Amino acid sequence: MSLRPTLDFLLYGWLDIERLNQRPRFADHSRETFDAVLDTCERIARDKYAPNNRIVDTQEPRFDGEKVIQPQATHDAHKAFVDSGMLSAAQDYEVGGMQLPYTVQTAANSFFSMASASIGSHMLTSGNANLLMVHGTPMQQAVFARNEFSGRWAGTMCLSEPQAGSSLSDVATRAVPDGPNFQLDPLGHRYRLTGNKMWISAGDHELTENIVHIVLAKIPDEHGKLVPGTRGLSLFIVPKWLVAVKDPRPGSSPRKEEGADEMPVALAGRNDVALAGLNHKLGWRGTTNALLNFGEGRFLVDGKPGAVGYLVGQPGKGLHCMFHMMNEARIGVGIAATMLGMAGYYASLDYAKSRPQGRPVGPGGKDAATPQVRIIEHADVRRMLLAQKSYCEGALALELYCARLVDEQKTGNPEEADESRLLLEVLTPIAKSWPSEWCLEANSLAIQVHGGYGYTRDFPVEQYWRDNRLNMIHEGTHGIQAADLLGRKVLMEDGRGMQLVATRMRATIARARSVPVLAGHSSALEDALQRILGATRAAWATGNAREALANAVPYMQAFGHGVLAWIWLDVAERALRGDPSGVLPATLGRLGATDYFFHYELPKLGAWLNVVERLDGTCARLPEEAF
Amino acid sequence: MSLRPTLDFLLYGWLDIERLNQRPRFADHSRETFDAVLDTCERIARDKYAPNNRIVDTQEPRFDGEKVIQPQATHDAHKAFVDSGMLSAAQDYEVGGMQLPYTVQTAANSFFSMASASIGSHMLTSGNANLLMVHGTPMQQAVFARNEFSGRWAGTMCLSEPQAGSSLSDVATRAVPDGPNFQLDPLGHRYRLTGNKMWISAGDHELTENIVHIVLAKIPDEHGKLVPGTRGLSLFIVPKWLVAVKDPRPGSSPRKEEGADEMPVALAGRNDVALAGLNHKLGWRGTTNALLNFGEGRFLVDGKPGAVGYLVGQPGKGLHCMFHMMNEARIGVGIAATMLGMAGYYASLDYAKSRPQGRPVGPGGKDAATPQVRIIEHADVRRMLLAQKSYCEGALALELYCARLVDEQKTGNPEEADESRLLLEVLTPIAKSWPSEWCLEANSLAIQVHGGYGYTRDFPVEQYWRDNRLNMIHEGTHGIQAADLLGRKVLMEDGRGMQLVATRMRATIARARSVPVLAGHSSALEDALQRILGATRAAWATGNAREALANAVPYMQAFGHGVLAWIWLDVAERALRGDPSGVLPATLGRLGATDYFFHYELPKLGAWLNVVERLDGTCARLPEEAF
Repeated sequence: MSLRPTLDFLLYGWLDIERLNQRPRFADHSRETFDAVLDTCERIARDKYAPNNRIVDTQEPRFDGEKVIQPQATHDAHKAFVDSGMLSAAQDYEVGGMQLPYTVQTAANSFFSMASASIGSHMLTSGNANLLMVHGTPMQQAVFARNEFSGRWAGTMCLSEPQAGSSLSDVATRAVPDGPNFQLDPLGHRYRLTGNKMWISAGDHELTENIVHIVLAKIPDEHGKLVPGTRGLSLFIVPKWLVAVKDPRPGSSPRKEEGADEMPVALAGRNDVALAGLNHKLGWRGTTNALLNFGEGRFLVDGKPGAVGYLVGQPGKGLHCMFHMMNEARIGVGIAATMLGMAGYYASLDYAKSRPQGRPVGPGGKDAATPQVRIIEHADVRRMLLAQKSYCEGALALELYCARLVDEQKTGNPEEADESRLLLEVLTPIAKSWPSEWCLEANSLAIQVHGGYGYTRDFPVEQYWRDNRLNMIHEGTHGIQAADLLGRKVLMEDGRGMQLVATRMRATIARARSVPVLAGHSSALEDALQRILGATRAAWATGNAREALANAVPYMQAFGHGVLAWIWLDVAERALRGDPSGVLPATLGRLGATDYFFHYELPKLGAWLNVVERLDGTCARLPEEAF
Repeated sequence: MSLRPTLDFLLYGWLDIERLNQRPRFADHSRETFDAVLDTCERIARDKYAPNNRIVDTQEPRFDGEKVIQPQATHDAHKAFVDSGMLSAAQDYEVGGMQLPYTVQTAANSFFSMASASIGSHMLTSGNANLLMVHGTPMQQAVFARNEFSGRWAGTMCLSEPQAGSSLSDVATRAVPDGPNFQLDPLGHRYRLTGNKMWISAGDHELTENIVHIVLAKIPDEHGKLVPGTRGLSLFIVPKWLVAVKDPRPGSSPRKEEGADEMPVALAGRNDVALAGLNHKLGWRGTTNALLNFGEGRFLVDGKPGAVGYLVGQPGKGLHCMFHMMNEARIGVGIAATMLGMAGYYASLDYAKSRPQGRPVGPGGKDAATPQVRIIEHADVRRMLLAQKSYCEGALALELYCARLVDEQKTGNPEEADESRLLLEVLTPIAKSWPSEWCLEANSLAIQVHGGYGYTRDFPVEQYWRDNRLNMIHEGTHGIQAADLLGRKVLMEDGRGMQLVATRMRATIARARSVPVLAGHSSALEDALQRILGATRAAWATGNAREALANAVPYMQAFGHGVLAWIWLDVAERALRGDPSGVLPATLGRLGATDYFFHYELPKLGAWLNVVERLDGTCARLPEEAF
């Protein structure tokens, strides 16, 4: 099985990404340059990632007291990825990027996620550098972002603390000005940080010579107290190794118009950031996950404890800046979940096509003298395969659709850009949560298709399932996504984002209504949309957030299924426009997956919305001692 | 959290097991003796199983070329279990048993499954010996079953082969008569077996001095050919070590009326059964799982290759005999799945009660100056906990209900016994499949409640989830159970079994209708029952098995949810009879779990039956190249 034909159809046949080339930013690009990027990534993923996926699982990262040890395969894969230039692919030419559309970058990265989701920590590095390109000073961009884009250094995001995972209000890491001249450091206002950060992906490793941590912390007020809530959060660059700008041009820091020119820098001793421990995970073992101690005094800087950090943006605006990175990260999680699902789908499809077992039901099926058939001939195996296809290819279409909105937001005309921004706000929780739940289910079905073999480590599917279980947790749990969707996104700007989603769905419904094989689905989607809109109103009918959000997760599950039904209907309609008689296997596959989704999946919507509509309080009101 | 109050209510308050004591077989028993058994098992599970559950996961069984090595903890737990006498608890006094009701035995064993599902292989040993007590000769019972019941030897069941997992028709292990006097061996007609058996749980180990394999194999016809299909299957006892009956009483084998008196036996050299390899599994690592080679010549017996095996029952009736063991095994799988779910529920409930994080939604919730609340105060965490409770306690009730039917079948009057037999036929696929699917989902929710910590191996929930994934696969996959339910069980004896289920459901519906807080659920269950009955007819409307069974799994999922809704309604009605004002926390808990099931779960039925009713052929008719 190759992913490429599916990607090609979605990118060129469905999302018309070639049209992007008419915009100035992408004017140098063409289908040829896009294809070249996809070719390169497909090859590196096949050669350097896929063969090592089991190795990074069995050779879990370990800390020898000095250094984190990971298998050579991880180093090789990292190097190959860096050499490909993908870390800065979407960036401007002037900082060494390719000005590639984000849609193409996302598609290209999907090869790596499918081959080995956990090997790369590149998503964090480019997300970190992208954040600095928006919120950092020219000097911060030149020193930190540029060295991340080049792959010389890596990046992290440090939000959670052991006592505060989802609750960022309760971050307790302190940042105090580092001496009277703290405002004069060319790298930014200089602070000393003290605190513990938990769940830091790629928090320590030897893949790069330095690691650029972006850290949320609080600056105490004049009484030495931390401001409660998220208002008090500021953002800091805290490098693992301090850096010395070796050859600053005369005059001091780079002028604004010089932008992010690369600066010659050298490492200048350890900063006071210490690895306190690696987490031992169920899966996703190709990436370290660490507890980091900032400022515990293990490494003194200028004879004093405290991790040196440079303020990014304004004090108290840290969360605002961080969200810039988190939204990209959420689409990244969606893609990873999707591609783990796809890897399982392909593995189980291959297995089902080659494994003989049993005989067909019905006449002649009991005649054991006839040869066994391949298991893909059994209806229930086909059901499990088609479910996987509909989950994973549908999720991939959704992720690419969202990526296309990012491009639209960045390069469309003001109206398109604004509409895309708002659509993204509403769709991001779905793009993050839906594949995390349903492509995980796909992985379970992939195990089931393999029977007992799927439960052994001789086949890859059990690892996909373990790796994928992370995605409902990190970058905001399912519960956090659901509260964001129903508590904020569908309400924002007087519900205009929600209305935009409805408008796009109705456009698809209208187009599909005139296609005979899709007319029934078109009505079903209209009904589903009405019910989702009604449930949204019903949830907020009393204006009581506690009642409205008590069933936020079932709401999100229903919303997600509605969105996926829309995506499939849109894909199917477009597939039939290219192949009106619907005879090509790929078209039949898309129609089959669409039929599957509308017959087997969309009807689940009612069960989820049922409790939303009635403001069901069964769970909320049960006394604690009754559990 | 303690399981005991839940068990006590289900056994004494709901299933009235004290009434069993009126029957002659159980006349010596009382609540006191039942409680003593439960106390003992609870204690052994707490002391010898629970503390070692992680050890058996991390110290996976390995083969050093000579012996299988397992941690000392496994040996200790095995010894404690054997010493408890539970291996033969339900057996007759005359073979050393306690004549304990099967319901009590099942409840007692649930402690072990919850503490460490994979440590014990005792289910197979007692199942194996039980089979011999029904189908074996007195000598086979005296030599093999008795030594299994005493824990001196262990047992296995060897059905699958590498090329034939679910398809027993294709078993290729050959059994040929061992010389001209093969019918004269006192242990049974003596054959030589050759073949490979895959997925053999507890297939090799050093926990006992001998292992009694019960093996499905085929006796070639006069032309040396194996009879195709399951008709050709015969059953054999193939011990790992050959046995010599040391002191046969004069006259030869024990007389029938002497039954299964223990015979003094000694080991007499290795049989030609060789461990070909251990399977490396995703979970359930406390039990070995092996590929065994029978008759490859590694151990010659009387100078010849071929594993010596003794025929059990009639030639060609092997599957019939084996089913006796498989049905018990399927309830055993259901209990294991249930108790893994329960372990996760209790772990996540404890965590939710102690972990502070975030603040309530609504007024004051944004005031970060207030202390964080424990996560059990968040509605979505409560939803995840109540879902687990409704899945796991509901499944436990179902398993005990089925166990009660086993007792009824064995000791009820002829009419009750026959009715129970038939009810069990229909309910067994549900008892096996439903907890395998939904208590696995419970384990996933338990991880989710823990957030990032749940994804680490520092907490037990990830192991429960991995261990539980086995249960949808072994002892007949989900697909096999579904085909059994819709293809055989609901049709058998002109649908009488299905009608019996409906009759019992209606009795509950009638009782619950007059209870105000249950009246709505009562109507909902009536509707669900009508829809299941209608879907059963619709599935078979064309009489075409291929069409009927194409959606057998969604049918089984719907049927299972209907059964669980019935079980919960029945439990709730009984709980309110004991506590009519419904004020006790336990009653509130049962009512809450019932409400949860009826509001959040039962409405899913429509989506599953939708495709059954319309004989949806989306999956079946998609061309292979379109996947």
